[in-house]
This record gives sequence, structure tokens and C-alpha cells, in this order.
Amino acid sequence: MEIITLSHGSGGKATNKLIDNLFYKYFNNEFLLQKNDSSVLPVINGKIAMSTDSFVINPIFFEGGDIGKLAVCGTINDICMSGAKPLYISVGFIIEEGLPISELEKVVQSIAKTANEAGVEIVTGDTKVVEKGSCDKIYINTTGIGIIEKNRAYLGGDKVKNGDKIIISGTLGDHGMCIMNKRENLGFKTSIKSDCCLLNKLIEDILSASNNVKVLRDPTRGGLATTLNEIIEHSNISMEIAEEFIPVKPEVDAMCEILGLDPLFIANEGKVVVIVDKNDADNVLNIMRQNPVGKDSVLLGEAINDGKNKLYLKTKIGGRRIINMPEGEILVRIC
Amino acid sequence: MEIITLSHGSGGKATNKLIDNLFYKYFNNEFLLQKNDSSVLPVINGKIAMSTDSFVINPIFFEGGDIGKLAVCGTINDICMSGAKPLYISVGFIIEEGLPISELEKVVQSIAKTANEAGVEIVTGDTKVVEKGSCDKIYINTTGIGIIEKNRAYLGGDKVKNGDKIIISGTLGDHGMCIMNKRENLGFKTSIKSDCCLLNKLIEDILSASNNVKVLRDPTRGGLATTLNEIIEHSNISMEIAEEFIPVKPEVDAMCEILGLDPLFIANEGKVVVIVDKNDADNVLNIMRQNPVGKDSVLLGEAINDGKNKLYLKTKIGGRRIINMPEGEILVRIC
Repeated sequence: MEIITLSHGSGGKATNKLIDNLFYKYFNNEFLLQKNDSSVLPVINGKIAMSTDSFVINPIFFEGGDIGKLAVCGTINDICMSGAKPLYISVGFIIEEGLPISELEKVVQSIAKTANEAGVEIVTGDTKVVEKGSCDKIYINTTGIGIIEKNRAYLGGDKVKNGDKIIISGTLGDHGMCIMNKRENLGFKTSIKSDCCLLNKLIEDILSASNNVKVLRDPTRGGLATTLNEIIEHSNISMEIAEEFIPVKPEVDAMCEILGLDPLFIANEGKVVVIVDKNDADNVLNIMRQNPVGKDSVLLGEAINDGKNKLYLKTKIGGRRIINMPEGEILVRIC
Repeated sequence: MEIITLSHGSGGKATNKLIDNLFYKYFNNEFLLQKNDSSVLPVINGKIAMSTDSFVINPIFFEGGDIGKLAVCGTINDICMSGAKPLYISVGFIIEEGLPISELEKVVQSIAKTANEAGVEIVTGDTKVVEKGSCDKIYINTTGIGIIEKNRAYLGGDKVKNGDKIIISGTLGDHGMCIMNKRENLGFKTSIKSDCCLLNKLIEDILSASNNVKVLRDPTRGGLATTLNEIIEHSNISMEIAEEFIPVKPEVDAMCEILGLDPLFIANEGKVVVIVDKNDADNVLNIMRQNPVGKDSVLLGEAINDGKNKLYLKTKIGGRRIINMPEGEILVRIC
């Protein structure tokens, strides 16, 4: 079995061989093949969106994806959240000595496939190798840039107004529970699959259909509750969501129940929260449901100007409680 | 002593507190403070240069710098090497549980100071925390973008022609030997200091003075021998450099001698190789020597069209040998 050795990270012959035989095999475009210290890209005729994320997920292969797919989806989705069209990404690998090259190849294939699906090019990269025990298999950073097309309005928490509607594009907690189940050998014999996917087409559908979207955010680490609390902090407004409408798959719900976890705090990797003017909410919801990755979209609640800047959950039994940002660790290394 | 815990990477309250109290304290600009999934930047009126690098150096503090300074210099220098003016960088942290927050703060201060010196803004970031033993203190990815101003010619290995001159901006091996000495407790009681520094002003000086520069490259991992071999591969030409002109500090030379290492293969973090048309070489050399980080610049040799695509070293005793790209590990985790 061929494995990654420290010499693959030395910058010398082995590094160059790895780049030529593996990276250039799957990442193949005129920009990367400039082979310079930085890549020269064409003029971008518009404002630029930029986002970065490092991925340290454990395990690196899971139901519905792997660290490569996740690393591309994560950064592309973040770029889309500002209303931008993603164009280019960089990929930086930190690899643990001893990783089988076949595993690295699977990850690289997955990165290439996902980038291709999203229509973005991998234009620059970096490879570091650390001694056995100085990282856990592989960590990947992706950084992306995209263009905000000229007619696109600015999206941001500060645009949220009283009465704006809150939509979520599907079920909560799938990614976090999939990773927990696999990593901790919890033995839940369920088919929980990560929702890890590209949201670029869904976002394009939404923004083409509506000029009244205020915020787009993907509720990843910390889940929907954290994302809504962050928007609240930024917007100076309260929000209320209804427990009865929160979409959770039965197997995710059951696993959360047993572990004492709340799906509101569990990470998603293929969902978007849309905050939209109340008069355009039905239109946006309809559009979202027509896209395969938005087919389970639901209206969860609305923004309320009560001067308290809190997230409220209207419970199934008619109560109302405040949902704060989570404290403590929740789940680690789920992305 | 306050330390980093897994909850700092959970995405919840502790993550947000770290971002507010530490990162926003030192990284403070309108783009980062948009606080969205991606940051929206102004239109860039020109071609864009993009580069990424992950830094896993051990130790994280050393004579002449630290991982923060290195992470900013590394990416900014790479952007400059395509003739671009660096504008924006992202910073992605992977932090080991247990790192003292005071050490993180020192690194963050250093990042802010170096970015400020270079005139670039840190526009987006990410923080991951992994369990103790799953990384070594801290790894940092920086990815940067810059603008190639309109009158700037394309730089690249494919432009090198017979007779072009090869200049190096100063002494070789300082960074690699400084790290080795510190990490391995080699006990060399020397004052070897890393050359880690920003090259943006030196590059600006060179490109403002000459339209005849063919290639700019910084000889980092793998040293000058690797960099020249890479350019040779790209340019389909041979190069000859003279041993007698290779600048090496006496203490670096002594340490290399004892360890059986060749300064030609040792990493630099504040040097640039300039390949320039022979008729403009003296002009460029003069300009470089007027800049503090280029004061020890020397002309090392030239490109030779002998159809063999080799790097030759003209030895002090009048011989000539081929210098190949290094095999094996050389030095690990020096950047």
C-alpha cells in the first residue's frame, strides 16, 4: 500500500510527483497549470465575495459524502449566501504521514467532482505533510471567491424588519447525527445520511425569483438556533419559530431524543435559512420546493420587533421559550 | 491560565466570544465586520492573482518571527511573485485544545501587524478546534488575492530565454537553519535568525524599474535548487549558477557543514529569485540593493540553451555539476 511520507511535503521531487500524478490528474485547468506561486485569473466585473473554511471532520468518509465533498460544498455554499456566483476556489491540504494514497485519491476525486458540478475551478493549492500524530488523517482548507452580479441587492442581518418570514429549506440535524452515529459507533442501525450538498442552484432559483430576500445563511456548526441567534444579534430584532413546523427526520429525531440533543443545535451541511419580506414568502417557498434540495422547505416563523432581541420557540403545547446560543462543546469535528 | 477548549470550536457562545474579544479586536475592518458567511469586497479593476498556503511550522515562535507573521508574509509574497499588488487575505485557524489563549493572542497580534505593514486587509476567517493530540498547537491557512495592474507584463517560467540573468536577493538558508536549530535543540550558540519578511516593497521597486523581468519566485520549501529546477521544467532551458557567488551567512554555512546539508536546498522566507533579460540585469540589481530586504542581492548565473534542461553549479574549484531537485524529506515543518 502506497502511503504519504514526510518527503511528499518537503517541496522536492516527491512533492512534485504527487502534484503531477495526483492533483493535476483531477484538477486540470489553465489557471492551476500556470504552475506559479500564485495563479492569475481573469478580471471579475463586479463586487467579489470571499469566504474561507478549514475542514477537520472525523471520520473523513461518511454516508452522503466525505471531507472532500464537504470542503467544496461548505465554501461554495458560504459564497452563495451573500448572493454571489462562486467562480474559483483554492485547496490547502494538511496530511498526516501514513495516510494511504488511495484515500487521498478518493478525496481528491470527490473535490474535483463537486467543484465540477458547481462550475467552479480549483485554481491554486498547497500540500503540507506533518508527522504521524500531528494531525488526524487529513485537514482541508478551501477558500473561494465569487462575483456579485450587478442587479443583486445586498443581503445581511441588518436588513431584517418586523414581520419578515423565516424559511428553512429542509430537515434539520441530518449531517451532525450521521457523523455522530458513525464516529462514536453508537450502533443506531438507521440510514441517517448527511445532507451535505451544493446549494448554488437553489440560491440562484431564489434570488432570480425574488428581490425581497433579506438574509441567506446556512445553519452549519451550532445548527439553526445558533444561526438565528447570530442574525438576531446583527439585526436587533427578535424572532419566533414554531416547534410544530420544524422539519426533522424520524430517525434523527429518535437519535437526538436518546442522546438528549436538540436538532435545533445540530449541524446541517445542505440547508439554507431564508429571511424574506412577508409579502414574498409564499412565492419564495414555492420556488424552493421545486428544487430537489429544497423540496422539504417550510415556513418556520417570523421576525418580531419586541425590543428584546431574542429567539423564541412556540412549543407544540402552546408555550413559548427563549432559545439561546448554545454553550459548551455540543459536537466536535463535524465539519 | 486561560486555554482553548473544544467549545471554542463548537460554533456556539464560546466561539462567538473568541471572535468578538480576540479576532475582532485585532482584525478590524468593514469587510470582516459584515459578519456574514462570506465577505463582500469592492470591484477589482484588473486581473486577479490568488494564492493559498497552510502553515504547520514547529516551533510556532522563533528568532525573527512566528507562525502568524510567516502565514501573512508567505501568502503575500506568493501573490507579489506574479507581479500583483496584494489586497485581501483570509485566515483559517486549526487550533489544538489546550493552547494558551495568550499564545493565540500573540499570533493574532503578529498577523494583524504584518497585514497592516503590507497594506492588506483580513476580510474573512474561520476557527476550528481539534482534540489534544489531533494537531500540534496551531495550524494556519492564509489565502490571498491581489490585483495585477494594467501595464504589468505576465511573468512565468515560459518566458525565460538563453542568456537571461539569475539574481537572488540575499543570503540562503537562514529560515530553515533557524528553525532546525531551535526545534532540534542543536545547541548551536549562534544568532541565526529567520529571514521571514514581506517582499512586496522590493517587488514593487523591481517591477517599477524594469519591464524586462521574466520570472519572480520565492525559494521557500526545498530552497533555491528546487525553485530553479521548477523554473527549468517550466521553461525548457538549462541554468548555470556559480558557487562562489552564492551568499550564505558564516553561521548558516557552519551549521550546514556540520549537519551535512546544502544551503541550496534550505528554505528561505524572505528572498526572491529574479530572472531578467541580460541587458537589464545591472539596473535591476542596483535597484534591489537599495531596498533593505534586497541589500545583499547578487547575480548568481544565467540561463543556457543547451537542450538538456538541467541546473548546473560551477564549483569554486572550476568544476561543474548537475544539481537535481532534492529527494527525501530534507527538513520537515519549516513552514
